Amino acid sequence: MKKNVIVGQSGGPTAVINASLYGVVYEALNREDSFGTVYGMINGIEGFLNDRCMDMKPLELSGELELIKTTPGSYLGSCRYKLPENLDNPVYATLFEKFHAMNIGYFFYIGGNDSMDTVSKLSRYAEKTGSDIKVIGIPKTIDNDLVETDHTPGFGSAAKYIASTVREIGIDASVYDNKKSVTIVEIMGRHAGWLAAASALARKFDGDNPVLIYLPETDFDQELFLKKVAEALETTPNLVVCISEGIHDKNGTFICEFSSDIGVDAFGHKMLTGSGKYLENLVKDRLGVKVRSIELNVCQRCSSTMLSGTDQKEAIASGAYGVQCALEGETGKMIAFKRSSDEPYTIDYVTADVNLICNQEKTIPLDWITKDGTDVSQEFIAYAQPLIQGEVNVPTEKGVPKFAFRK
Amino acid sequence: MKKNVIVGQSGGPTAVINASLYGVVYEALNREDSFGTVYGMINGIEGFLNDRCMDMKPLELSGELELIKTTPGSYLGSCRYKLPENLDNPVYATLFEKFHAMNIGYFFYIGGNDSMDTVSKLSRYAEKTGSDIKVIGIPKTIDNDLVETDHTPGFGSAAKYIASTVREIGIDASVYDNKKSVTIVEIMGRHAGWLAAASALARKFDGDNPVLIYLPETDFDQELFLKKVAEALETTPNLVVCISEGIHDKNGTFICEFSSDIGVDAFGHKMLTGSGKYLENLVKDRLGVKVRSIELNVCQRCSSTMLSGTDQKEAIASGAYGVQCALEGETGKMIAFKRSSDEPYTIDYVTADVNLICNQEKTIPLDWITKDGTDVSQEFIAYAQPLIQGEVNVPTEKGVPKFAFRK
Repeated sequence: MKKNVIVGQSGGPTAVINASLYGVVYEALNREDSFGTVYGMINGIEGFLNDRCMDMKPLELSGELELIKTTPGSYLGSCRYKLPENLDNPVYATLFEKFHAMNIGYFFYIGGNDSMDTVSKLSRYAEKTGSDIKVIGIPKTIDNDLVETDHTPGFGSAAKYIASTVREIGIDASVYDNKKSVTIVEIMGRHAGWLAAASALARKFDGDNPVLIYLPETDFDQELFLKKVAEALETTPNLVVCISEGIHDKNGTFICEFSSDIGVDAFGHKMLTGSGKYLENLVKDRLGVKVRSIELNVCQRCSSTMLSGTDQKEAIASGAYGVQCALEGETGKMIAFKRSSDEPYTIDYVTADVNLICNQEKTIPLDWITKDGTDVSQEFIAYAQPLIQGEVNVPTEKGVPKFAFRK
Repeated sequence: MKKNVIVGQSGGPTAVINASLYGVVYEALNREDSFGTVYGMINGIEGFLNDRCMDMKPLELSGELELIKTTPGSYLGSCRYKLPENLDNPVYATLFEKFHAMNIGYFFYIGGNDSMDTVSKLSRYAEKTGSDIKVIGIPKTIDNDLVETDHTPGFGSAAKYIASTVREIGIDASVYDNKKSVTIVEIMGRHAGWLAAASALARKFDGDNPVLIYLPETDFDQELFLKKVAEALETTPNLVVCISEGIHDKNGTFICEFSSDIGVDAFGHKMLTGSGKYLENLVKDRLGVKVRSIELNVCQRCSSTMLSGTDQKEAIASGAYGVQCALEGETGKMIAFKRSSDEPYTIDYVTADVNLICNQEKTIPLDWITKDGTDVSQEFIAYAQPLIQGEVNVPTEKGVPKFAFRK
């Protein structure tokens, strides 16, 4: 009897996590000789524990599956649910009973390092109990912080959105180019600076904005920062500075934490502004120049307007490759990318031991950051450039993008 | 002897103010029999007073002019410069001496109501002094608040960006759809709610997010707001609320001013957060639900990713029509749009007396807002829908939009 397939999504959304879902579902549905029903978990493993599942086949028939390819967010819904460390915890027995009751033979989980922790635990529990369920992780995270892979699906589209948006912000900021101004753009990334680094791809020419880029991989010094800003304003009157939300001083104190000096708001909450807002006030106070801070916010991870063709293609392919690997008997693995060349850009799809990946964080190599910690090197550009190539045609309805959603 | 042409841009940028510039320049360059040199003012009238001009012809030869069509921001640079009320002020004589020295016969100014004030004053001075310089205003403002015209170039693209982005934010917010959450989106618009109202175009189905929309045309009541949010959460667990930055209570106090209760920041500045941030804290405090606020910020006016084809076409056409009107001897006029039908959408290009336009503000008709002040009516949808139609192919280089800029 053919075994059934189940797939879930977990953690924060990206522009292409649904493209990976498409890859898994399309590939599984098109191997009817190998697989039975293809199920989707609603709200990941947390929803599955509450028996929330759907049959994916009708989506192919209705055309909804095609639309999923260009829909940001998590079509199936997500969760942040950490399985217990102790594999003797009864939740594992409950889960596997449900798997067996549904005749599940293949489990796919699309997510970042927390989700790979789920893949690790389920595959170890399967091994321990002699279950033959294949458990495979499909990578996704805009943060690009998974180890054992060249990069992760989701990063390319977020990087393309950031590069394009920072270029536009630079154009906007230079409209009053007979007056000086500073624009500070706060970009996602608590511990890894990949996304903020991608703002370097915004430059139209050497020396163009963003002139200064600050990442959490190095320590941030407020006085040095002010000096750099003042210097840069001499040659770039409308200065754009990009920062990771997670920049911190040499003691590891996040710059945004300094804003807590301001006390509590009308409701008694500690007013913690972002790093960008804090630096806006710092520059205004110390340099007396016009300053604005902009938080790119969730649009970095949910915009369909700057889908990278490369990213979307790889997201789909990693989902499909995951299905092939599971069919060949692999388990406890995450699909990973191995790059053999920047130009022409060439990657191979491989599998990596999920136990080496979960709960790890990959940051930018320090030699890809300039010595003064205010820019990235050519190595980073060569690495990131191929990942933002290619445009995707998103279907529209009445002038806005048309998205798939669960009815 | 043929007279020369000069064109300038003024006020805040939009996604299509350069398309209007293209319209003026392209039309004027292609009527060599009627016009001499076509000049651009750098930084508007302020830069012109400092003799900052450029010849636009080389841009046509280099291909840069084509690129201007899809470049956001103000290619020529902008200014916020108010001419004196008293036409006897010597600045007028200075300006007209410069016009005559450059053999200017036609003056075009692309901007909003402040810029139309400049057009009004220059045309009145010309009339008063017997100068035959034709002075024409080309409308632009994302705020859509100019009177005597159906709408303004710039609004359509901003509205398309807002509708598309709010739809994406709604998708992003519903990823954890097994938990309740409120997302507050703050949209530009101090006195007129056109932009926030455009978020209604984000809905995928009746009753979809944004469920609540608050505009500055009506008074905002914090307690009623909390009641509406609590009610809406019952049917829409991941609620998106869109607000204009300029929402205010019945006394006219801006909601963002309430945040000033929190005192001063580390630098002694009064910490004035936006209305969105204030309401985020209010909802968190009173309803105890997960809340996030998002400020769409400058991307509303500088994004090229959501250029409306209709908006771009009309921006170009209004520039070109301005040139034709000036040639026919009109002066002291702004190019305006007259709509004869929503479906099929039909407009005529007309001229309007600029003296009726400058320093006026058009807000949303109150009968286009629902009685409880939390939504717009079908009349608004019928009005706004045609303005966001059509996609524009923006040229790219290395994966990001390619823009024109002054070297």
